[in-house]
Amino acid sequence: MRTSFFSDDTICAVATPHGMGAIATVRVSGPQAHGIVCSLFKRKGVAFPEEQIEGYRAYYGQIVGTDKASDSEVTLDEAVVTFFKAPHSFTGEDAAEISVHGSVFIQQRLLELLVEGGARLALPGEFTRRAFVNRKFDLAQAEAVADLIASQSEAAHRLAMNQLKGGFSKELQMMRSKLLEITSLMELELDFSEEDVEFADRSKLKALLEETQTHVTKLMDSFRLGNAIKNGIPVAIVGETNTGKSTLLNALLGEDRAIVSDIAGTTRDTIEEVMNLNGTLFRFIDTAGIRDTAETIERIGIERTFRKINEADIVLGLVDATQSQADLIKAARFILGKIDDVHQVVVLLLNKTDLCPSESAEKIDLLKSLVTESSLNHTYIQTLSAKTGNGLDQLRQTLAEIQQSMNVSQDTVMVTNVRHFEALKHAHESLNAVQKGLDEGIPTDLVAQDLREALYYLGSITGEITTDEVLGSIFSRFCIGK
Amino acid sequence: MRTSFFSDDTICAVATPHGMGAIATVRVSGPQAHGIVCSLFKRKGVAFPEEQIEGYRAYYGQIVGTDKASDSEVTLDEAVVTFFKAPHSFTGEDAAEISVHGSVFIQQRLLELLVEGGARLALPGEFTRRAFVNRKFDLAQAEAVADLIASQSEAAHRLAMNQLKGGFSKELQMMRSKLLEITSLMELELDFSEEDVEFADRSKLKALLEETQTHVTKLMDSFRLGNAIKNGIPVAIVGETNTGKSTLLNALLGEDRAIVSDIAGTTRDTIEEVMNLNGTLFRFIDTAGIRDTAETIERIGIERTFRKINEADIVLGLVDATQSQADLIKAARFILGKIDDVHQVVVLLLNKTDLCPSESAEKIDLLKSLVTESSLNHTYIQTLSAKTGNGLDQLRQTLAEIQQSMNVSQDTVMVTNVRHFEALKHAHESLNAVQKGLDEGIPTDLVAQDLREALYYLGSITGEITTDEVLGSIFSRFCIGK
Repeated sequence: MRTSFFSDDTICAVATPHGMGAIATVRVSGPQAHGIVCSLFKRKGVAFPEEQIEGYRAYYGQIVGTDKASDSEVTLDEAVVTFFKAPHSFTGEDAAEISVHGSVFIQQRLLELLVEGGARLALPGEFTRRAFVNRKFDLAQAEAVADLIASQSEAAHRLAMNQLKGGFSKELQMMRSKLLEITSLMELELDFSEEDVEFADRSKLKALLEETQTHVTKLMDSFRLGNAIKNGIPVAIVGETNTGKSTLLNALLGEDRAIVSDIAGTTRDTIEEVMNLNGTLFRFIDTAGIRDTAETIERIGIERTFRKINEADIVLGLVDATQSQADLIKAARFILGKIDDVHQVVVLLLNKTDLCPSESAEKIDLLKSLVTESSLNHTYIQTLSAKTGNGLDQLRQTLAEIQQSMNVSQDTVMVTNVRHFEALKHAHESLNAVQKGLDEGIPTDLVAQDLREALYYLGSITGEITTDEVLGSIFSRFCIGK
Repeated sequence: MRTSFFSDDTICAVATPHGMGAIATVRVSGPQAHGIVCSLFKRKGVAFPEEQIEGYRAYYGQIVGTDKASDSEVTLDEAVVTFFKAPHSFTGEDAAEISVHGSVFIQQRLLELLVEGGARLALPGEFTRRAFVNRKFDLAQAEAVADLIASQSEAAHRLAMNQLKGGFSKELQMMRSKLLEITSLMELELDFSEEDVEFADRSKLKALLEETQTHVTKLMDSFRLGNAIKNGIPVAIVGETNTGKSTLLNALLGEDRAIVSDIAGTTRDTIEEVMNLNGTLFRFIDTAGIRDTAETIERIGIERTFRKINEADIVLGLVDATQSQADLIKAARFILGKIDDVHQVVVLLLNKTDLCPSESAEKIDLLKSLVTESSLNHTYIQTLSAKTGNGLDQLRQTLAEIQQSMNVSQDTVMVTNVRHFEALKHAHESLNAVQKGLDEGIPTDLVAQDLREALYYLGSITGEITTDEVLGSIFSRFCIGK
């Protein structure tokens, strides 16, 4: 159940990005929002009475305060104030948005005036939290707002918009309805337990359960890709030392330097760079050179490289075109042996073809036969000269193609949030226990307990069931003013 | 004369500060503003017809665009759009402000959609330039908008607000009227020059001229303080080497680290730190140790220190309490000898009193007699231990007191802009030439020429007379979206 956690106070915060700009907007929400703003607002020198406020109406005027030293009235700034009346506002409360000139001083002073007038500074995410409490949207949608603001690519933006529109919430609602149906049947049975009646048709129960499990599994499976789209599809660049891995990374980034950025907070034990290609983020991971571990003692670095290969959705495997056929076979087989065909796509790149152009065709054929031998299904093979840039465009095209094959239509529901993934995992476990219980003829009351757990976890995603603590942890990660 | 330099195009830009925030606002202005925005805007899935627009009304709806890949309509974001109808907008044109979620992607994509719809990206300051062209305010007021946004302290903010309100513009207007009166009298005289008539009463002309000159001089004089308030009142910390200058600077800044910043672009041949004290910016300048130049060859550093003393409005003169009386007298006399009593206030600080507390009273008396001997009028004397912090609070209080004595009431007109100062200087020179001409009986047509020059310079401040080039240079320093 959602209950209100808020006292009847009014909150305020700068809602626009930090710093200096042409204009800045301060948001005020709560029962006193209109009164407090009106106490600071004059139009042509005349006070603006709260009674005259119309919702969704913008008013031009001046923000006035009192100069402490002279105790005289001073104009802080010209402003356009837009009022919103409950429930027709973002939060569902009475609210106002004050647009002022974007000086840091004015923004700061306006907040001071609002606080002197009776508002308090909002906590991070508090506006959205109020919107949630007032049933403007559910928790998954509230989290989508944060994702929307943070989205750096078209694909990530699309996922967040889908979630905000409520597609995910609807699917969860559907599953919960089914489970509730089962639960109520079971609980009816419990009421008559003395009489040893079975109201619930066990085979129908099982069918419903399996259906729900399939759905939960599908959603869980979507998390790998959903998360990749949100944070960048991980692409591992692997190969022996001196096959040109770093040259390739630099060449890929070179022309796109402007839209390249480091991932904040990434432990840089490997070099990672994020790049926006065709509206999708790719996270390129330059790994340490691998060799057959029998021949070397650099085990730690190589273990790490293997881990990075595991985490990647796309593996760019570089092999050196100038080496002997035997070495080439060994290097390519080594890479192909590390690929997980279910989750990964490998692109074998015959690099340094500028140094031995005549041998390219023959060596590509060789790589093709190795791929056939490996019986991997998702493979690409192409030539490259990372140094001269030949083949780079084709590689970008391949990446775009792979991304499109992964990509999702506008309405696909996809899990992108770790919290949601964890909740689904727990629900999955509980449903497994239910299934096992039914199979093994465990007493109905114990089975019903597991079902309630599954319901709880699914409900926690949209906030049907939640605690103050959970809400606190979710909204504290929002920015202030949201 | 102000003429329109604009073609009939519609401009757009993000008006809120750069980066990510809860909300961001994109501004659109120009004849097509309403049509272009309506082409992207739907309410509950239905197109919003331009004819239904009411000015100063906010509408909630969705921004929609076309997905290039699938050629289907996609929702970019939820938005609140506020429309303004000409001439009731910031620019005086038809305009709209679109509030969206503050993701960088959404801001970028929304601009793209607007440009696809027929708008173009605004140049820096172009919205304000249009407001100027449409006579929403004059040039001095337009520049005040930029100052307002950049203001970092209450005092600087107050100056900018005054200028925005138009007090300065009114004074200039008054002066121009007077000069125009003189000019027209003189020009009438020119028309009848054959007849050698003197329409203009020479003594009345001279009185008017002198009055105007006094006014121009007053405004020019206000620039030193106006500029100081805007950029920080310059405070030079001077004294012999090892009198504790850097310790004092650090002690002053110590507790206020958070609100301290370097001045961007300052050539750091001396250490300068800006601090906000009681709503006023102070710019502290730590200078190289000075000594009597006869005793040393460090001439360059000392010349530089002297220059810095000259530029300062307040001089903090440190003398070492532990030195002999003879040395103390010499050091104090040296500092006092450098002070310009008209423009500067000196605070003599007897430092290191923690090392010889018993001698403080006697040495303070000695300093008092030296000040009397110097016949300076704006002096303070106090004890200090920069090391222990004793006397720091009193020094801060003294600085606040000096600032208050300098400070200006809310309505004082003050020149803060170098361009305005330069124009006033030129006007002053022209008026001098007029005065000289009248005194020396130079032909009326030559005198009238100088008068017209003075009028030109005064008119250039508010933009009564201006060129495209001047406008370009002024508005290009604005931020985009303003």
